[in-house]
Amino acid sequence: MITIIQLFAIAISVLAFGMALWLYTWVKAQPAGNSKVESIGQYIQRGANTFLKKEYAILARFAGIVAILILLFIPAPIWKGSTQNIVMAVAFLVGATFSALAGKVGIQVATIANRKAAAASQTGIRYAFLAGFRGGAVMGMAVVGTSLLGVTAVFMLTFDATAILGFSFGASSLALFAKAGGGIFTKTADISADLVGKIELGIPEDDPRNPAVIADNVGDNVGDVAGMGADLFDSNVASLAAALVIGLSLDSSFSAKNVTTVFCFASLGLLSSIIGVGTAKMGKSDNPNHALNSSTYVTTALYAILTAVATQVLGFSWRIWAAAAIGLGVGTIIGIVSDYFTNDEKKPVHFVAKASESGPAFTILSGVSYGFLSVLPAMVGIAVAALAAYLVCDPLGPGYAMFGISMSAVGMLSIVGMIISNDAYGPIVDNARGLVEMALLGDKALGITDSLDSAGNTVKAVTKGFAIAAAGLTVIALLGAFMTEVNATANALGMGMQFLTGFDIMNPVVFFGLLVGTAIPAVFSAMLILGVDRNAQRMIAEIHRQFKTIKGLKEGVEGVVPEYDRCIDIAAVGALKELIPAGFMAIISTLLVGFIGGVQAIGGFLTGNIVSGLLLALFMSNSGGLWDNTKKYIESGKLGGRGSDAHKAAVVGDTVGDPFKDTAGPSINTQITVVSLISSLMSTVFLTTSLF
Amino acid sequence: MITIIQLFAIAISVLAFGMALWLYTWVKAQPAGNSKVESIGQYIQRGANTFLKKEYAILARFAGIVAILILLFIPAPIWKGSTQNIVMAVAFLVGATFSALAGKVGIQVATIANRKAAAASQTGIRYAFLAGFRGGAVMGMAVVGTSLLGVTAVFMLTFDATAILGFSFGASSLALFAKAGGGIFTKTADISADLVGKIELGIPEDDPRNPAVIADNVGDNVGDVAGMGADLFDSNVASLAAALVIGLSLDSSFSAKNVTTVFCFASLGLLSSIIGVGTAKMGKSDNPNHALNSSTYVTTALYAILTAVATQVLGFSWRIWAAAAIGLGVGTIIGIVSDYFTNDEKKPVHFVAKASESGPAFTILSGVSYGFLSVLPAMVGIAVAALAAYLVCDPLGPGYAMFGISMSAVGMLSIVGMIISNDAYGPIVDNARGLVEMALLGDKALGITDSLDSAGNTVKAVTKGFAIAAAGLTVIALLGAFMTEVNATANALGMGMQFLTGFDIMNPVVFFGLLVGTAIPAVFSAMLILGVDRNAQRMIAEIHRQFKTIKGLKEGVEGVVPEYDRCIDIAAVGALKELIPAGFMAIISTLLVGFIGGVQAIGGFLTGNIVSGLLLALFMSNSGGLWDNTKKYIESGKLGGRGSDAHKAAVVGDTVGDPFKDTAGPSINTQITVVSLISSLMSTVFLTTSLF
Repeated sequence: MITIIQLFAIAISVLAFGMALWLYTWVKAQPAGNSKVESIGQYIQRGANTFLKKEYAILARFAGIVAILILLFIPAPIWKGSTQNIVMAVAFLVGATFSALAGKVGIQVATIANRKAAAASQTGIRYAFLAGFRGGAVMGMAVVGTSLLGVTAVFMLTFDATAILGFSFGASSLALFAKAGGGIFTKTADISADLVGKIELGIPEDDPRNPAVIADNVGDNVGDVAGMGADLFDSNVASLAAALVIGLSLDSSFSAKNVTTVFCFASLGLLSSIIGVGTAKMGKSDNPNHALNSSTYVTTALYAILTAVATQVLGFSWRIWAAAAIGLGVGTIIGIVSDYFTNDEKKPVHFVAKASESGPAFTILSGVSYGFLSVLPAMVGIAVAALAAYLVCDPLGPGYAMFGISMSAVGMLSIVGMIISNDAYGPIVDNARGLVEMALLGDKALGITDSLDSAGNTVKAVTKGFAIAAAGLTVIALLGAFMTEVNATANALGMGMQFLTGFDIMNPVVFFGLLVGTAIPAVFSAMLILGVDRNAQRMIAEIHRQFKTIKGLKEGVEGVVPEYDRCIDIAAVGALKELIPAGFMAIISTLLVGFIGGVQAIGGFLTGNIVSGLLLALFMSNSGGLWDNTKKYIESGKLGGRGSDAHKAAVVGDTVGDPFKDTAGPSINTQITVVSLISSLMSTVFLTTSLF
Repeated sequence: MITIIQLFAIAISVLAFGMALWLYTWVKAQPAGNSKVESIGQYIQRGANTFLKKEYAILARFAGIVAILILLFIPAPIWKGSTQNIVMAVAFLVGATFSALAGKVGIQVATIANRKAAAASQTGIRYAFLAGFRGGAVMGMAVVGTSLLGVTAVFMLTFDATAILGFSFGASSLALFAKAGGGIFTKTADISADLVGKIELGIPEDDPRNPAVIADNVGDNVGDVAGMGADLFDSNVASLAAALVIGLSLDSSFSAKNVTTVFCFASLGLLSSIIGVGTAKMGKSDNPNHALNSSTYVTTALYAILTAVATQVLGFSWRIWAAAAIGLGVGTIIGIVSDYFTNDEKKPVHFVAKASESGPAFTILSGVSYGFLSVLPAMVGIAVAALAAYLVCDPLGPGYAMFGISMSAVGMLSIVGMIISNDAYGPIVDNARGLVEMALLGDKALGITDSLDSAGNTVKAVTKGFAIAAAGLTVIALLGAFMTEVNATANALGMGMQFLTGFDIMNPVVFFGLLVGTAIPAVFSAMLILGVDRNAQRMIAEIHRQFKTIKGLKEGVEGVVPEYDRCIDIAAVGALKELIPAGFMAIISTLLVGFIGGVQAIGGFLTGNIVSGLLLALFMSNSGGLWDNTKKYIESGKLGGRGSDAHKAAVVGDTVGDPFKDTAGPSINTQITVVSLISSLMSTVFLTTSLF
């Protein structure tokens, strides 16, 4: 049944596309920079496209194979007369395609916006800020618009929440490639460029003679803009999928209302983000931090008010509203806590900087310690959010408690349009700063882009914490969705409607899954980090080859340009090559556990994945951010500044932190989501075919 | 009812004491070294005693307070007429005292054996090996004899399995001080001695001018000998306590037989270890690795045979025997896997050494990656052991599955006497090597102690893996014991015998506990590592003071001796001071979770502790061991040897790894056990007083 609220969701999605188009036009209309800015900028843009093309080519093959497997086996073997398989396979492909499109659009605009921001920084901070922010906001609008449109369209066409899980799985698969592949790419380029350029040859960071310099700048875009976008696309869709699956399974007289609530709240979240993005501008203070924060506050407040009005007018339950509000509140708090652990005005950075004076071992030890400490408030926050949402919604009836948790995740992710905009702003102004330096635009422009960049780093810590918290709550909701799917299947097979009432830790099959599941995110992280290492070695060999065979390159002879594309190519191919075994490991271990221990073991396995995944993701993201800012803090002249022993130690910390925070840490989210969705999709198979 | 088997257990304990006495006499009768060996050796012995005295003084106060709290509140408030409280408080004090005594004896002998081994190494390897091994075996015999005696005596006097939990809690509290306090002490001394001695002043590692040099050698003894002994005392007692609590709660017609099985298997394990220790000697190959391994094999085989005979003769269930055998087998396999990740003939060490050529950041990244990978086989091993034990024993009747898991832990820990002997051998010969160097006993002696030391390092990796696996299985059994205790209380309160059938992950209160519990081992580790850092700063200040104020010290004027004791004092007081907040954090978080969420939340909390504790303990122990051996591998002349860039990077890795593997990693075991035992002891309180 097509409802007004679904049409409303589609209308808001279209409005988001309109906003994206307007922002794009605005950015595009900004004055161009000088020829050097344009030429280097275009190298970056072409490089990003090269990576995306490779990535999408491999993804297309992967998605093709998976789609065939879905067609054959999911939700049940097709030769047993299941026709739902066709819908699932199509939904999967649409999910992957939609996410890929949003990423493509976002990166296209980001690689234009960086040039515009660089050019604008010659005249003043306001337009430079706006070019960066609005460039990033295109990504925000595209991602959330596409995800809401996709979920609504699939639901309207199929009336089947399980199909949304297929759509979500498509988005997750793309996210795995974008986030983990992009993460390996960006750190490969970063590390190789630094090792050969700065350390071996002693040339500056962004020296155009370095064959890896463009790859390094491309990396910021593919890792941070496209990767983060795909990650949050994934979480957003997964949270909606979980809420719809659970909401529909409840007492049938209310299930329509539950669906309405989900679409309504998601639409209002996007609407709030559209308005929030529109209000973002530099106030009189010329403080970019202020501008970013105030638009986030506008979005949050607007969301709370709009959903409250909707609840009153449309007669939704206030308990559901409260669950969503709790999610949003806790997400914000966790973001702020992440900021504490990585902000260079707070104790952790000062402590690690001081410890660095005793050598790099102490940089690592103190950073690891604060990274471990940072886990507690976030875990407690997620725990309290889940508990509170559960308790608030439990009185609504059986099953509503878990629906409350899923709505809490939807609430937390409601402002995701704004979050992505803030997050994509970071790499754009970071790139702009690089362009200002490479194109020698002068000290004023450098000062302005420095200040924009610094705000980008601060906001990045907050958005990363937010992304992990959102993924955490989402995967808890997915665990609920898994149980719902199992029960639906069990019911269809005549095994009873309440076949599965939970996962008992004291059941050894659950415990078996739990222990194995706990190890998976650690192994996945290790494989990605080792992948960066191996890939960097390939790239270093290529850089050496270029310096050896291209005459005049090392000497900087006018007109001699390195083969940037070769480096981008190597980093891209290698990144995807390194990613695939890690992805397969996660998928195959899920299948093994499922076939050995059935749905009970999978319940434990997912739980193990969630808890150790959250632990490691928070640890790695926060310690990585802490080391990064410690280095910058020392470079700002503290504790001896650049070249001091403390600085050398901090550089070691930063190099360790790079793959922690940009490759492994944030990819874990996606790994968990992929594993959760596969489990839900395979529930019928695991239920009917397992050893125990 | 006093049974023959209990008298047998006491007899075997006494036999172990006899063996310890014989070994002690043998060690004592070995020829003394020259005056320099004796004088430095006595400094170490006095230093170790100083630490123990401080530790036990603080422990006594702590234990006194806890005993009063137990008296007042556990198992139920004393003003409500509970008289069991007196028994519990006494059992607690006896547990702490017994473990302390075993530690005291062990360290006393270890600090004699190191001198004897140093002296013997001048003439040949055989007696040097025996001095080291038999010195360590005193610890092994003392620990296992005392723990079996204690458990048996408490049980015979009270006929109450809960009292054994009290005894176990006493042992755990001592272990927390010994392992975590000793771990902070040893790394404080190690790092401070290196930083000032080797790096600032450029004097050799074991130079007697360095005021911290004795503290460094003392650290090996208090951290590795006393700490590891207390840790395994703790696990051993906890596994017996869990098995007795669960075994007694089962079908009453069989509960006596279950108790008999527990005592019988534990006694036969100790008997096997006694014989195994007796057979240890150097074969014709002069290979210390061989000698250590062959006596372990003797013990294992003997245990399997003896328990099989007992099962046949006394009519025990073969299923229980199989569960114990599974535990022992898996423990051995996990030990071997740990060895792979830290052995310098295997790929991980070679890979990290090669990566070190690119700088310290790559040492860290590759070491962290392999540390993460090492988690998988051990987790899968524990998971399979628990699952197999459960499935094998499930047909015996309701509740027997969990009894099977606890017997699997008992089986794994049966050869603990041998394991401790092997483990304590390591620091003794390490110290002997230091004495040979400091007393200039010549190249032959140095070569011999080098070879003994290298065998010690290899066996240490295996025993550490074993200790973590044993703790893992034990805490799973303790989770079962906790449930049993709750049900016993619930039954007494008229809430039904099957009040608690498990902990459902989908229960939000359980999930709340799970998420919070997951964070605790990370926070605990961070607090210990930061404690090492702070304590090292205090000690460095003291070393600086001595070099400044003691005339002639830096120049090495004959007869000028630094104030070694001051350094030992500072390290000892500081270590205990740093430990206390970490211990309180773990205890208070347990109480908070219990008072908020009751027994359900505690079930989740303990599970979270177990999974993240195992994850982090395995990761930190293995990556630390890997870095240590990577440094040694390079120092053996590979990749440029000492002084090369790779070596410098490997030194950074080793310094990071030190508190990982010797402070935080192995202390997590104890933290989990303490938390598990408190939960069991507080079960009545949590059951009757909680928010949800």
